[in-house]
Amino acid sequence: MSGIWKNNIGLSIFGESHGACVGITMTGVEPGIELDYEFIQSELDRRKPGTSDMVTQRVESDKFEILSGVFNDKTTGAPITMIIRNENMISRDYDGIKDRLRPGHADFTAKVKYNDFHDYRGGGHFSGRLTAGIVFAGAIAKDILLKKGIQICAQITSIGPIRDDELSDIITLSDFENLKDSFPVVNDLKKGLMKKAIRDAKAELDSLGGTIRCFAIGVPVGLGDPYFESFESILSSLIFSVPAIKGLNFGSGLKLATMKGSEANDAYYIEDKIKTRTNHNGGILGGITNGMPIDFSVVVKPTPSISKKQESVNFESMTSTELQVVGRHDPCIVQRVVPVLESVLALTILDRM
Amino acid sequence: MSGIWKNNIGLSIFGESHGACVGITMTGVEPGIELDYEFIQSELDRRKPGTSDMVTQRVESDKFEILSGVFNDKTTGAPITMIIRNENMISRDYDGIKDRLRPGHADFTAKVKYNDFHDYRGGGHFSGRLTAGIVFAGAIAKDILLKKGIQICAQITSIGPIRDDELSDIITLSDFENLKDSFPVVNDLKKGLMKKAIRDAKAELDSLGGTIRCFAIGVPVGLGDPYFESFESILSSLIFSVPAIKGLNFGSGLKLATMKGSEANDAYYIEDKIKTRTNHNGGILGGITNGMPIDFSVVVKPTPSISKKQESVNFESMTSTELQVVGRHDPCIVQRVVPVLESVLALTILDRM
Amino acid sequence: MSGIWKNNIGLSIFGESHGACVGITMTGVEPGIELDYEFIQSELDRRKPGTSDMVTQRVESDKFEILSGVFNDKTTGAPITMIIRNENMISRDYDGIKDRLRPGHADFTAKVKYNDFHDYRGGGHFSGRLTAGIVFAGAIAKDILLKKGIQICAQITSIGPIRDDELSDIITLSDFENLKDSFPVVNDLKKGLMKKAIRDAKAELDSLGGTIRCFAIGVPVGLGDPYFESFESILSSLIFSVPAIKGLNFGSGLKLATMKGSEANDAYYIEDKIKTRTNHNGGILGGITNGMPIDFSVVVKPTPSISKKQESVNFESMTSTELQVVGRHDPCIVQRVVPVLESVLALTILDRM
Amino acid sequence: MSGIWKNNIGLSIFGESHGACVGITMTGVEPGIELDYEFIQSELDRRKPGTSDMVTQRVESDKFEILSGVFNDKTTGAPITMIIRNENMISRDYDGIKDRLRPGHADFTAKVKYNDFHDYRGGGHFSGRLTAGIVFAGAIAKDILLKKGIQICAQITSIGPIRDDELSDIITLSDFENLKDSFPVVNDLKKGLMKKAIRDAKAELDSLGGTIRCFAIGVPVGLGDPYFESFESILSSLIFSVPAIKGLNFGSGLKLATMKGSEANDAYYIEDKIKTRTNHNGGILGGITNGMPIDFSVVVKPTPSISKKQESVNFESMTSTELQVVGRHDPCIVQRVVPVLESVLALTILDRM
Repeated sequence: MSGIWKNNIGLSIFGESHGACVGITMTGVEPGIELDYEFIQSELDRRKPGTSDMVTQRVESDKFEILSGVFNDKTTGAPITMIIRNENMISRDYDGIKDRLRPGHADFTAKVKYNDFHDYRGGGHFSGRLTAGIVFAGAIAKDILLKKGIQICAQITSIGPIRDDELSDIITLSDFENLKDSFPVVNDLKKGLMKKAIRDAKAELDSLGGTIRCFAIGVPVGLGDPYFESFESILSSLIFSVPAIKGLNFGSGLKLATMKGSEANDAYYIEDKIKTRTNHNGGILGGITNGMPIDFSVVVKPTPSISKKQESVNFESMTSTELQVVGRHDPCIVQRVVPVLESVLALTILDRM
Repeated sequence: MSGIWKNNIGLSIFGESHGACVGITMTGVEPGIELDYEFIQSELDRRKPGTSDMVTQRVESDKFEILSGVFNDKTTGAPITMIIRNENMISRDYDGIKDRLRPGHADFTAKVKYNDFHDYRGGGHFSGRLTAGIVFAGAIAKDILLKKGIQICAQITSIGPIRDDELSDIITLSDFENLKDSFPVVNDLKKGLMKKAIRDAKAELDSLGGTIRCFAIGVPVGLGDPYFESFESILSSLIFSVPAIKGLNFGSGLKLATMKGSEANDAYYIEDKIKTRTNHNGGILGGITNGMPIDFSVVVKPTPSISKKQESVNFESMTSTELQVVGRHDPCIVQRVVPVLESVLALTILDRM
Repeated sequence: MSGIWKNNIGLSIFGESHGACVGITMTGVEPGIELDYEFIQSELDRRKPGTSDMVTQRVESDKFEILSGVFNDKTTGAPITMIIRNENMISRDYDGIKDRLRPGHADFTAKVKYNDFHDYRGGGHFSGRLTAGIVFAGAIAKDILLKKGIQICAQITSIGPIRDDELSDIITLSDFENLKDSFPVVNDLKKGLMKKAIRDAKAELDSLGGTIRCFAIGVPVGLGDPYFESFESILSSLIFSVPAIKGLNFGSGLKLATMKGSEANDAYYIEDKIKTRTNHNGGILGGITNGMPIDFSVVVKPTPSISKKQESVNFESMTSTELQVVGRHDPCIVQRVVPVLESVLALTILDRM
Repeated sequence: MSGIWKNNIGLSIFGESHGACVGITMTGVEPGIELDYEFIQSELDRRKPGTSDMVTQRVESDKFEILSGVFNDKTTGAPITMIIRNENMISRDYDGIKDRLRPGHADFTAKVKYNDFHDYRGGGHFSGRLTAGIVFAGAIAKDILLKKGIQICAQITSIGPIRDDELSDIITLSDFENLKDSFPVVNDLKKGLMKKAIRDAKAELDSLGGTIRCFAIGVPVGLGDPYFESFESILSSLIFSVPAIKGLNFGSGLKLATMKGSEANDAYYIEDKIKTRTNHNGGILGGITNGMPIDFSVVVKPTPSISKKQESVNFESMTSTELQVVGRHDPCIVQRVVPVLESVLALTILDRM
């Protein structure tokens, strides 16, 4: 396990769901940035558990503690380390399933890879709880970018079968206004249906997934390089670091596969500067940002932890078994993934600038 | 521009479409591997231009020349460098469009990023021709993996609106038998329709995109790590290095967004070893391979080079202009992307072993 | 500032001398290693301040706290994060010299590089105190190596003008027996003279440097690669990460410059396995370990913090000034560098295995 | 074998002494740099063999061929690949010693590490001939730095027992004037003695080593970072990539070990800008350049290839043997290492800017 992402910005992630803490070290941040602790905490709060009946009832204050890299509330240029102590662990929930593999989880692969020394409680190091560190780093990145006129936002485009209204091909700041909610859906009716669907899934001891579309406006032309350091390559390596994400599509995504070249090509025109009439390429051409909004969508799989009975295997005895995941889970994590996704986009942009 | 990918395997890509050559240096290959030159050439031939009326008429023999790292036909452990000399360049095709930005291409972003010093002829370093190096490295990787019982294959799942039959959720080696063609489509009728669609698009001076599903069978449990070195992260960073790829979805991909957890979770059972009843997760859980087939799909956008008239901008004069891309282009590159995609999958697996 | 070293083993260092803590995240450690907390603490104690009148009187217990990566006292394979809380800071010592540049320190370069946002107290992130994290990681590495029959040791070869007896060209485990002291010098008379020299320097408000020779026995043939990942390259990048080290010489070092080839070449012979009669190359040929003891020496410059009056400059007013560094300093840090040096050697060996 | 160095500048080295060529790919060079082919060739000529009776009689024109990254004689920003074809190989020289290990060479370590698949002819990939690529990249770096007012130079400070006059602690551009020779020694008498010593060693079928002091003037304050990316760490990783280098000492080097703090500390004063009275730290404090000349020395071991009879071992038969290295060797490579050393310094500075 490396847990280290090293480019111009460096990220070193650590911690376990039921261990002492989760945390991150972030490097490469310029000195003299005044940290907005309230904003950072509000970003962490968007991700934290226990905030509604649609997410896990594990109650964590998720108060961050900065251990290094900040002096007189400003970044020093040295590595910034942050930890969040774990508080509300109920590890006995996991005793009964220690050797029974939870379908859809990393239990099996972790057991094989780490010879059964893995901390299985709550997913241990594999837990989505680790993304709190990414949100912390992302909040710092967002704040720096905002001062340079770059804004980031996301829309929950679907939860299970319920789809939100489709926004325009070329997203604008006015679209952002409608996405300021912690559950960012533009059509309120759809939002209600989505929340109902989540509650229904919970009642059925089941879970839901969904899709998220994420944007950045104000990104300069020229970030990224062809081939191995394309903007898409770097962003994708971070996006697929986020647990539960199984798909990533830029711009018009899957629709591009059925378009003709004459439709898919974004025509150039001049309006103050060079722009494109459409944004089917999601703001990236040849691996390099073209000044149009960065625009991509991800697929979030339904939470694997469900209380329904599932067919499984006992890894120790190598026998068939059944399993119901007790304890507290999210019937849907899509809304909690939103700030994580915005964070990795912010980190990618900052990294390439 | 970095052009270097450095993990356990290293790749250093170089060259231009109308320069002296395209090539690659591959590092980290174990010593003593006997190179199968015929196989390597056959893989390059799958990608090379000029082979049918459905691809560009640029005729290149694409004969590779190994400059280093091989002694007595075996790898030595030292970096392997390979070049393919360019032969059939018609650079004057590009004189007329030197300053006019081809929509959908990297012309604009390259001009801004490289201050107009970029070799614009045929896309220069951005050309898909550079992927020949990736196919060379991939052929070596495939050969090594085959000896370890790992096989890789791909299916063209759609060209424009035409979709091939859907294969089973859990792919098997017998499926591979039906995909041995240079245009790997299982339903012959659909294959014919696809080829016709490509020829039609060409006749209309237009182009088509499509989707490709790619598989690996025999991959051991345990490749990849959580977070930044997840199997998906590493593979995606290579996949989004391939020009024209705009989407990547693992396992059931977009369908996962509408499934319930009880449907999406792959139930475990024992049959000789631990397996899953379904493979919605595409052979990867928690960023680590689980022994089921690796299974993912990509979106290939339609070739941006089309002879239809397009709205554009002259970068020098900053005026509106129109443009028809003359010269030789592919009406569809999906079939040429197939070996590139198989190659990056092979390279990711080899890298993680 | 990166603070990240990423190879097979990863190190992410953080903290400040007068901040909350110093610490490190170590990645790439195999799962299932039972940590020997006593050994780790004893290694940290070799480096910690306040242990005698020859080092700084800052009293720190240097008790380590493991935050992640360990479950049931065994490594899990996940990143291991360790912090040591700072306890005995007297930051006012640094108020008076905030803007006056301490000669030989990083004050000037840090002020320029970090725009004066640097935490200047006690050297901040530049403090040698950060090496506690390296010693922690090194202790884990040493423990793993010991189980594989690899032992590491060091000799203080000189303090100021006093030189210890020269050990043989080919070091043996019996030499290690004489180097078990926290002040590892083989000749007791010389050891006494060295300690006296340090106390004398302290009395004169001055400081001393010295040289350390460091060894590893039992290292297998084949670690390292030619060129950029030579064993020397990797080791040197870690050694020159240690503050105050200004020279590194392998094997016979400077003497090699005056030897003839016939003298410098280590002749091969067979005794059970292939060995060399001499070890002028320090156990490394062509960047690769050859099975002979790894053997190198470093130069440690005298501690720059001295209480003697020095000529300097006030960075704010850009005027000449004089300065006496008050507060608690080490008259000599050579003995405290010993465990750090052993640690980076252990980490390099572990990284290449 | 990695052969890849990846920082802001990337280097990918390849080739063999008796294979098709040696070469390098250099990435990260800004677009629009007009390449001075004559200067590049003159730098390669300083390193090339066969130029006098003091070096190997292998005659190579060492004409470089640029394969990529240059368009209209200017860099494009894409990877620059250069090869030098090998011409004057006499591989039969190596037939007799195929299995007999040449002392001081990488024969033994390469055989073990690469399972005997290594190209043994002339050292194969381990050959110092590979450094031609480094000199090519270094020439480009030097040219870019010169335009920014940064100049690099070196002095042969000793050959065997003969030492050149010691230059001042703080080197100046006027010192550079006396070091413009391909055999840069300031005292002509000493230069004559050195050359005589080399010829004498050759007559005795033996070889000599030496020391080189290397400088850069005009380097801005602020290059490098504390710990793992200290200027010393990065430079040292490149320097110990150069075959035959066994020691590296910054500033006053070994003398620092016997100085007191009050002597070793470089006092600050103001003369237009902040300077130091002395330069014992070699222009680097806390891992960061301080604006004073970069100043370091290396130890070059005597060429291991000597025609004198040596004790050795036959690796195949595992028996004792004797060996005389026939063929063409350098009785001394110190003067050929000079441009390589200047190159890695230039590359480090360019990388950190």
